[in-house]
Parts: sequence; structure tokens; C-alpha cells
Amino acid sequence: MHTDFNVLENDTYDKYLSPLKWEDNFLKLLDQRILPHNEEWLTLQTKEDVYNAIKLMVVRGAPAIGITGAFGVYFSLIEAIKENNTDVLLEKLQKDADYLKNARPTAVNLSWAIDRMINKINTLRCLKKIDLLRAAERETLSIWAEDINANIMMGSLGLALIPENANILTHCNAGAIATGGYGTALGVIRAAHDANKNIHVFSNETRPWLQGARLTAWELNKLNIPVTLIPDSTAGYLMSKHEINLVIVGADRIALNGDVANKIGTYTMAVLAHHHNIPFYVAAPVSTIDILTPSGKEIPVEERDMEEVLCFLQKRVAPDGVCARNPVFDITPNHLINAIITEKGIIYPPFSQNIRKLFN
Amino acid sequence: MHTDFNVLENDTYDKYLSPLKWEDNFLKLLDQRILPHNEEWLTLQTKEDVYNAIKLMVVRGAPAIGITGAFGVYFSLIEAIKENNTDVLLEKLQKDADYLKNARPTAVNLSWAIDRMINKINTLRCLKKIDLLRAAERETLSIWAEDINANIMMGSLGLALIPENANILTHCNAGAIATGGYGTALGVIRAAHDANKNIHVFSNETRPWLQGARLTAWELNKLNIPVTLIPDSTAGYLMSKHEINLVIVGADRIALNGDVANKIGTYTMAVLAHHHNIPFYVAAPVSTIDILTPSGKEIPVEERDMEEVLCFLQKRVAPDGVCARNPVFDITPNHLINAIITEKGIIYPPFSQNIRKLFN
Repeated sequence: MHTDFNVLENDTYDKYLSPLKWEDNFLKLLDQRILPHNEEWLTLQTKEDVYNAIKLMVVRGAPAIGITGAFGVYFSLIEAIKENNTDVLLEKLQKDADYLKNARPTAVNLSWAIDRMINKINTLRCLKKIDLLRAAERETLSIWAEDINANIMMGSLGLALIPENANILTHCNAGAIATGGYGTALGVIRAAHDANKNIHVFSNETRPWLQGARLTAWELNKLNIPVTLIPDSTAGYLMSKHEINLVIVGADRIALNGDVANKIGTYTMAVLAHHHNIPFYVAAPVSTIDILTPSGKEIPVEERDMEEVLCFLQKRVAPDGVCARNPVFDITPNHLINAIITEKGIIYPPFSQNIRKLFN
Repeated sequence: MHTDFNVLENDTYDKYLSPLKWEDNFLKLLDQRILPHNEEWLTLQTKEDVYNAIKLMVVRGAPAIGITGAFGVYFSLIEAIKENNTDVLLEKLQKDADYLKNARPTAVNLSWAIDRMINKINTLRCLKKIDLLRAAERETLSIWAEDINANIMMGSLGLALIPENANILTHCNAGAIATGGYGTALGVIRAAHDANKNIHVFSNETRPWLQGARLTAWELNKLNIPVTLIPDSTAGYLMSKHEINLVIVGADRIALNGDVANKIGTYTMAVLAHHHNIPFYVAAPVSTIDILTPSGKEIPVEERDMEEVLCFLQKRVAPDGVCARNPVFDITPNHLINAIITEKGIIYPPFSQNIRKLFN
């Protein structure tokens, strides 16, 4: 894809609602843990800062994690560049890359962006140090700019799938702040809104982190897109009452056969949509497709600390002595998905075949 | 059903975990809004106290609401008994009955218990005042005792449906504290546990009121029944991993055709169970079956204040200016239900036919 850096000009944040800012070798991240009541930006300048920001979910959303991870490799290079032996330098970088990838295991975009950075640096290893640094910074910004461009493209392609006056259900936050800007699933919704399709969004609150309540509602509200918040358990009822016309979600990893890993609860929405004969769409950049993963069975599902379920905002909900399960993702099998919207086109079933075609 | 008042002896609360106590014309209710961290009992002595306790969800669960409503009629009689004209007295009672029924519209047990009280008082209208009061009190206690007995019977009948080593999913709280004591769905679970079936329960947290996290986890923990708390959106994932063997829930109203109104999210669990070929059972006393309601379509679904969704434990989650939907119940159509466990026997499909048989 052509890298259009225009999207990274000064007004990026306002226009595309990006959760990142890059200012003189400092990465600023919108702290998504304290939205919607506080809009605070944290400043990162080391790979450890990046690891922690991803691990602790200051930044979340597969594409945004990927971009942040790329900055992590750049920070690692700033440290390692003091090393005169290029092999030792690259060894150090690779070690840091593995460390950074470990911050969250399910989203493939993190690995993808980190590997892309390492490969670029490897290719340019003979450059002067100052030029290598500049090229690495440029590569990081390319990953970011390409992501925004991909989202805008997904929006304009996905638009065709959104009927006028649609009531759209979405889960978690696959919006601007889950990406470099503009958003994947919410990008398509934004495009439909901008095309005056008179849409309305139901946002699942998305327990346990409440990304739907805290982030999607905040984002859509900021964009003046009509949004109604619902508990995750309410979507089925609304479908049974014909109040939902389609479902659109993002993805953390898409296997070669089209199985989709996404926020826990996505699979339930897909089963419900299937039961009610409602289309279920996934919007994600091609970088989310992991052609090395044959199917959803091979995607590791991260389970986080059970305290996230037992407590909320430091307040204990459940009685003492009770355990909880906290898988963060689930796998939606390809047969429950009607289409996958990417920047390179809309993929329809049979996915196994059509994803291969896209990559050939 | 034979009224076995033994269940109302002094140790009732400890043994059956009843959410009510009756002490010298004072009704004490366990305040379920502040469980599991605080176990406080509120004292009620007027019909207004009863109306508010039901409306504000101090007491919840269809059978428990019914019993509390019966005490409301008794309190109304204590006031009205000063009236010497029996017709005027009964008119006052009827007005209070309508007022009390209004506290929550979906659960049928409230209307059922109130009507039973009114009918009884009507039948005994010629008694001396002191005897009428005594008879009304006795009727209230009968409703309560019969409910506990019905639950114990459901437990011993439902036992047959629970395999050894079962992992059982339940939604909301259909336990002792949702009834006169012992519980409906949790009563069956309790019976299976007492029969050493080595069961384990997954409890949906049940947004927005978190009855699963606050009440079911508390109750099962108290009974030493192994329980794992999960967000509502996690059940589908666990089913896809074959970690759930059956689903059992309570009911707020069962239509003549077997459609079931129960806590919002129940329908989603039924669709998921159907999709995964997992049995879905409902446990409820016969008083929950409303033969005047032909199907689920005719059951009114209460929508409560959207603040219950916008906030989480009294703390605002969603940004200002965002709306929410808060239907409290949903309707599970009969074809998604494998069996309805009542104290008069287990009802299997075709429900339309077999429910009629039960009432003939």
C-alpha cells in the first residue's frame, strides 16, 4: 500500500481520533484505562514503557498495539545503536522484539509490526547510524500512516454493506482509538454516517473491561453518531425483536481459513446473528490476517487475572473465596461470518479459498 | 399441595437460606441490594414498605416477590380491618392489591400470591375480625411454606437430569434468596450436590444488577458448592470448548405454551445451548405458570431506568449524553427448552400439550 503521510499531519488527532502522538522522540498515548471521564496522555520513551503500556492496557486494540509495538522497536534501536558490532546490535534488537511481543499474545498485529521493523532494520543494517535511526523512525510512522489509510479504505469499501437506516450492533471497541486512527468496524460505521445513511449503533458494554461503555460510546458520541449502550446480555433480546439489522466487529487475529479471534463475547454475537439470520461482518486490516495460523484452533487465547472479573474500579463485586474465569478473546468460526472487510477488498466465503487468493 | 409448616420452624433461615423472617407481625427481609459484603435485614410493617421493597429490589426473584406480596396484603388487612362494612373492607383490599401488583409487572407470582390472599379473605369474610386476621396470616405463611416445599420437591425431581461431574451454567439468581428458601434452579443444583454428584457451577455475573456475582456466587459459596464466576459474554466460549454440560435457570413467568420470561440474557443462553446441543432446563413452581398467557408474546417485559446500565455499582461508566436500553427480562421460546422442572413433575415438550395436562 502507498504510504500517505498526509494523515499524520498536525490535525491527525482531531480528525481521525488517533490514540497516539509522536513528538520529538516521545510517544504519547491516550490512557484508555481512565476514559471516558479523563482524557490523559502518557509519555513513553523506552521499550519498557511500551511493554507496560500494552500489558496494562493503556493502549488496546490490535492495530494500535501493533503501531505502539513498532515504536517499542524504535526505542530499542535508540538504545542498541551505541553498539558498534551490527550483529550484536541485531541480536539485542531481536531479544527486545521477543520481549515486546510477549506483552499480549493473541493480537497478531503486534508480532506483525515488530517483525516488519526488525526486517527493515536488518535490510538497512549497513547504513550510517543516524540514517538507520531515521529510516527506522520513518518505518514506524509508515506503519501508523498505512493503518489509518487502510481504515479509511475499509470504510469506503464496507459502506456498501450498510443499508440506510440500519441499526448496527458492535462489540468492544474497534474504533479510532483501537487503531492508528479512524477505526476498523467503527470506521465503516463512521463512513456510513458520513454518507448520511441515518444509522444508529447499539454498543455492547463489553464486560469485564467495559470498552463498549467507556470507549465506543465515548468515541461515537464525540463523532455525533447516535449510540445506545446495552449490557452484553441484551443483544439477543433486541435481535429477537428485530431491532438489530447487522453486526460489525473488529478482529485481533484472523486465521488463514477465516476464523476470527476477537474480544470475548464476539462469538456469542455471531451465534445470535446466525440464529436470527442477521449478517455478521468483521472489519480488519490485512495485517490482522495471520497466514501462518491455519485455523482458530491454533490461536492462543489469553486469560487475564480473575481479579478483573471479581472486582470493578478497585471495588470487589463477588464474595471472598469465589473464583472466576477471564478469557479475553474467543474464536468465531468462519461459517458464522458473512464477510471480512479489509483495505484490499471485501472477502466473502469460502474464506479459506478467498483469503489465499488475496495473498497470492 | 400439603402445607408442611415444619419448614418454617426456627432454623428455617440457616437451613433453607430464606430471604424472609416473620417475627410478631414484622416482616424482615434480607437486603439483597448490598450483598455479598453486607448481610442486613430490613423490617417491613406496611403495604407501602412492601411495595417499595419489591420496587427497589430489596427482595427479588419471582417466588420471593410473591411471598412478600402476600405479606403486603396481610399488612393491608391489618389496616382495613378497622372497617366494619365488609364490602368496603374488601374494596380497600382490592385497591391495595392492585397497587402492590404494580410494583413489578413481569413476574406472575406476585399477582398469583396477591390474588390467592384476596380470594382467601373473601371466602372467610364472615369470620370474626381476629379470626380473619389469623387465617390471613396463616395463608401468607402457607404460601411461604408451600414454596419451600415445592423447591425441595423440584430438587428431588430435577436431580435425575443432572449427570455426575456436571459443569452447570446458571444465569442470574434462582436460588434460596429468590424464593421462600432452598431455591428453584439452585435448589436442583443443591440437591445434586447433596447427592454427591460432584458438580461444579459456572455463574453468569448477570449485568446490570450482577445477581450472579453478588447473590448466586454468595449463596453457592455459603453452601460449599464449587462455583466459578464468569462475565455473561464468556458462556458461549466455554460451551464451544465443551466446558459446560447443561444450563439451568429459573423463571419469572411461564406462558401456557411453555415460553419462559426470565432475567435478560436467559434467551441468549438458550440460543447458545441450542447451538451447542447442550440441554437447557427451567426450574419453577407451578405458580410461575400463567395459564391466562397463551405465549411469550403476551408477557410484558419491564424496562427499568437506563441509569442501571450507564452506571456500574453506582459509579458512572458511560460518558455523559449517552443513552442505554435496560429491558430486565427476555422471552425464551419453548422450542429452545428441553424440560421444565416443577414440583408436580418434569414437563417435557410438546409443552403446549403437557402444560395443559398438568392443569387438567
